[in-house]
Amino acid sequence: MAFKAAERGAISPFIVMDVMRDAARRQAEGGDVIHLEVGQPSGQAPARVREAAACALADQPLGYTLAMGTEALRARISRHYAETYGAQVPPERICVTTGSSAGFLLSFLAAFEPGDRVAVAAPGYPAYRNILKALNIECVNIPVGPTSRWQLSADALSKVEGRLDGAVVASPSNPTGSMLDAREVAALGAWCEGRGIRLISDEIYHGITFGARAATLAGAGAGAGAGAGAGAGAGAGAAPHAVVVNSFSKYYAMTGWRLGWMVLPDDLARSVECLQQNLFISPPTLSQLAAEVVFDCGEELDARVAAYRANRDILLNELPGAGFSRMAPSDGAFYLYADVSELTNDSRDFCRRMLAETGVAATPGIDFDPFEGGRSLRFSYAGSAADMAEAAKRLKAWTR
Amino acid sequence: MAFKAAERGAISPFIVMDVMRDAARRQAEGGDVIHLEVGQPSGQAPARVREAAACALADQPLGYTLAMGTEALRARISRHYAETYGAQVPPERICVTTGSSAGFLLSFLAAFEPGDRVAVAAPGYPAYRNILKALNIECVNIPVGPTSRWQLSADALSKVEGRLDGAVVASPSNPTGSMLDAREVAALGAWCEGRGIRLISDEIYHGITFGARAATLAGAGAGAGAGAGAGAGAGAGAAPHAVVVNSFSKYYAMTGWRLGWMVLPDDLARSVECLQQNLFISPPTLSQLAAEVVFDCGEELDARVAAYRANRDILLNELPGAGFSRMAPSDGAFYLYADVSELTNDSRDFCRRMLAETGVAATPGIDFDPFEGGRSLRFSYAGSAADMAEAAKRLKAWTR
Repeated sequence: MAFKAAERGAISPFIVMDVMRDAARRQAEGGDVIHLEVGQPSGQAPARVREAAACALADQPLGYTLAMGTEALRARISRHYAETYGAQVPPERICVTTGSSAGFLLSFLAAFEPGDRVAVAAPGYPAYRNILKALNIECVNIPVGPTSRWQLSADALSKVEGRLDGAVVASPSNPTGSMLDAREVAALGAWCEGRGIRLISDEIYHGITFGARAATLAGAGAGAGAGAGAGAGAGAGAAPHAVVVNSFSKYYAMTGWRLGWMVLPDDLARSVECLQQNLFISPPTLSQLAAEVVFDCGEELDARVAAYRANRDILLNELPGAGFSRMAPSDGAFYLYADVSELTNDSRDFCRRMLAETGVAATPGIDFDPFEGGRSLRFSYAGSAADMAEAAKRLKAWTR
Repeated sequence: MAFKAAERGAISPFIVMDVMRDAARRQAEGGDVIHLEVGQPSGQAPARVREAAACALADQPLGYTLAMGTEALRARISRHYAETYGAQVPPERICVTTGSSAGFLLSFLAAFEPGDRVAVAAPGYPAYRNILKALNIECVNIPVGPTSRWQLSADALSKVEGRLDGAVVASPSNPTGSMLDAREVAALGAWCEGRGIRLISDEIYHGITFGARAATLAGAGAGAGAGAGAGAGAGAGAAPHAVVVNSFSKYYAMTGWRLGWMVLPDDLARSVECLQQNLFISPPTLSQLAAEVVFDCGEELDARVAAYRANRDILLNELPGAGFSRMAPSDGAFYLYADVSELTNDSRDFCRRMLAETGVAATPGIDFDPFEGGRSLRFSYAGSAADMAEAAKRLKAWTR
């Protein structure tokens, strides 16, 4: 008897999760692992966040919240846009989500029909491609590389053959860490606005930047003009129909708390609310209550960013000695995307051997780029400085 | 400029969430509300669960877990099946999820293509219908009522015209609380197995039953035969291709912790793992760590079930005096589904007026049954006995 199993459900694994499983197995068998594979901050969430969670745990019933999130957290996120970017984002346009993962799922479902065509950068975050496939949306891969600074642009999108219904942009990008500047973000937003292309702006690495601050596409509701940005950050403000996706998992270091948020255009707000009610009920309650105070932990969080920067510099200094010399510009996030074409054209096998022979876990480029990723790999430098130095030492000995 | 907004994203609201919002507004304006609308236990999770969470909060990094959930929790759930149902469910077939909501989303995506046809009972849990629509799966509504004890049956499914690819069954049911007995569960499972129909068994109200214990369809991996059940509970065990969905939100009273689990057939396990990696990364970590001990809180949880039963009896005794005399059999869960056709044929307006004029919030039947639900409403009796008595008193005065 043949049972239904959906072709659309047979998506690719998120390969980094498989690497994590292999690394966990190695550790369970007594081997040591230096974790340069997983894109998460090490250590705990800020102390004030954990204190707020402990209080809520003692006092609060922790039932469902409103589907879009608690009013207090939505108001606090709204204030964050004013304080950080000088952007006006009313709480009504903010939807708290179960991590940015839920933000992508909800925005794709709300915006796109089966058969619609959405552009993503290759290399790019693999879940974009895999979620789009699971929802029967066609993924239009835009190759990016050194000449485009590993980023989408209006120019590249204008060369797509056939219809384009949407695009996903990430600055800083995963896996490269490269960024668009405020002018480029605004230009991309305006180009999409002018053509009815729904832009999804992945801003989950905002806050983790080593030069200019990242520019947001939040802040311009439908009908608002450009140039809302005025404060310390940069509100590009030129895309009132864009969806902004953000997360508490990266800069805010609340990874396993599974919390994020979206800034919604007016025309998708109600459908996202209904989708959230039905697909999620509401985001995790304790995480929502604790997240209110994380915006006041800037000092602790910025110290982490300084540590990421120091880690990056260790790898940038040391890895060339191990044969990893060509890297994408790591302007932000905590990744180095390395060209390893002189060492392999099978990055998955290469990472497996590297883990088995050195204990250093990294993520094969094919997780991010099904076309060219066999010749790249991603190092995450979110761990400790000692781990970075030790990894570099082992890799130098290994490739020598 | 026309921007894409997906027709499939324009699903119905989960109306009870809108009722919750109206009730919250009334309370914010100083009005009192008796909450008989929302399907969640009142009060906190068991003390041991909160203690375990407090310890994890202090000691653990709370990063991502493996996508399918921690090995410890999967092992504990496996033991639960042995202890409660006498059923053998290996941890490899268990996937921890972000509430049962994620379980439905993942199982529908893994099993069904756009255009596939899946049977659901009307009245039934509205999110089945709404998630199916968002995923472009055709929902085949099976009217149920007093003559079918408000449940699906092989007989009713066999009368469906056209192809059937799947079915969703819930025992105890939301909104009625009615149950199938072990023989009926096994018969339904066997009927679907024999016809290649993927059965999704919603078992989220297991544990909250007032007569016979609920029977599970977990416990028979592909290739296993019937009759695995032997212990205190009942493992119907006749549907190795069925997907079982369960939750920590109801009997286990961990509602806002957003945690549930699935028992997967072998042929869907890998696709669900890949979908989970991409759509969720992993379920909330603190919730997973705390949930390990909730299976050892039986005494506290069973005391809640006794309280639900007492609440049910208050409403069954008192509501007829307010004109709510015809109820579905509330064998389990914490709902009464009342026929109010002598009072209204517009249950949504009726509930709005009832809230405004008495402060008693209930959920209109149209949330559960788009066809006949205008003449029904659902009372949740998960609150306090005092609230049940006060609600009954107010409703008697109101309808008199």
